[in-house]
Amino acid sequence: MPEIRYFFEDFTPGRSFPLVDKLVSAEEIVAFASEFDPQPMHLTEEAGKASILGGLSASGWHTASLFMRMMFDGWLKEAASEGSPGIEFMEWKKPVLAGDRLSGRSTVVESRVSRSRPGIGLVRFLHEVENQKGQVVLRGENPIMIRLRPSQEAPA
Amino acid sequence: MPEIRYFFEDFTPGRSFPLVDKLVSAEEIVAFASEFDPQPMHLTEEAGKASILGGLSASGWHTASLFMRMMFDGWLKEAASEGSPGIEFMEWKKPVLAGDRLSGRSTVVESRVSRSRPGIGLVRFLHEVENQKGQVVLRGENPIMIRLRPSQEAPA
Repeated sequence: MPEIRYFFEDFTPGRSFPLVDKLVSAEEIVAFASEFDPQPMHLTEEAGKASILGGLSASGWHTASLFMRMMFDGWLKEAASEGSPGIEFMEWKKPVLAGDRLSGRSTVVESRVSRSRPGIGLVRFLHEVENQKGQVVLRGENPIMIRLRPSQEAPA
Repeated sequence: MPEIRYFFEDFTPGRSFPLVDKLVSAEEIVAFASEFDPQPMHLTEEAGKASILGGLSASGWHTASLFMRMMFDGWLKEAASEGSPGIEFMEWKKPVLAGDRLSGRSTVVESRVSRSRPGIGLVRFLHEVENQKGQVVLRGENPIMIRLRPSQEAPA
């Protein structure tokens, strides 16, 4: 595992952390949908074209899971994360089509120390994922629990 | 694909539709996490025990994706669904541990005909997933777009 360098204190409101880019293939769209969301528009180009999505499109849960990995590789792997209690909202704004290249960022909306868990803070992020045309495809907010910096590691 | 038997008109507020049960294995928890959410508590029993989750636990995105499949097999495959614009909220209430058996239901909260898309209705569901102890592990609401019953299929 990579070294932890981001603690609660580093997540100040307004600060943005980039997600890692991700190219989405038809094969992975179909593989995810076959396991978790076998609605026709996620399985074949023909059914996607016949739907309001307009083509073979990733399940929204696949897009959300891809976002999670883009966030992990982008910054979360270096953060003192203790996971998350949930999602405040998530919008699937545009279809994610085979061949799309996704990018994005997580921006700190607010942060506070937990009242119930000593040493833990709650940081609420706005996450935005865009395609190669600059269109936002996924947008949502969720709180992540992040450990406070241990006192011996306090900045000078 | 199975025959469509549920149209917008069938989703009346208060009506519940059961999800199909799902037994969650350690292997699938690790496989999903390796691809989408490689935080330590989702990869090994040891790291899970050391975390606030208390054991090897499914990624919240995995639980959400499992819920999607439980919903598809439970009722969505027989519904005239056109997908969903997003999630209004989702709470990961308890860890989902290897060996858990999940069950649950989707309950109609409200429904309305779309103003912008002719022939489509928006149905807002409360989804609840429980483990074998009856503890709610996942809870959330989201709107699903569902086609109105074609006039030739109107009930007598």
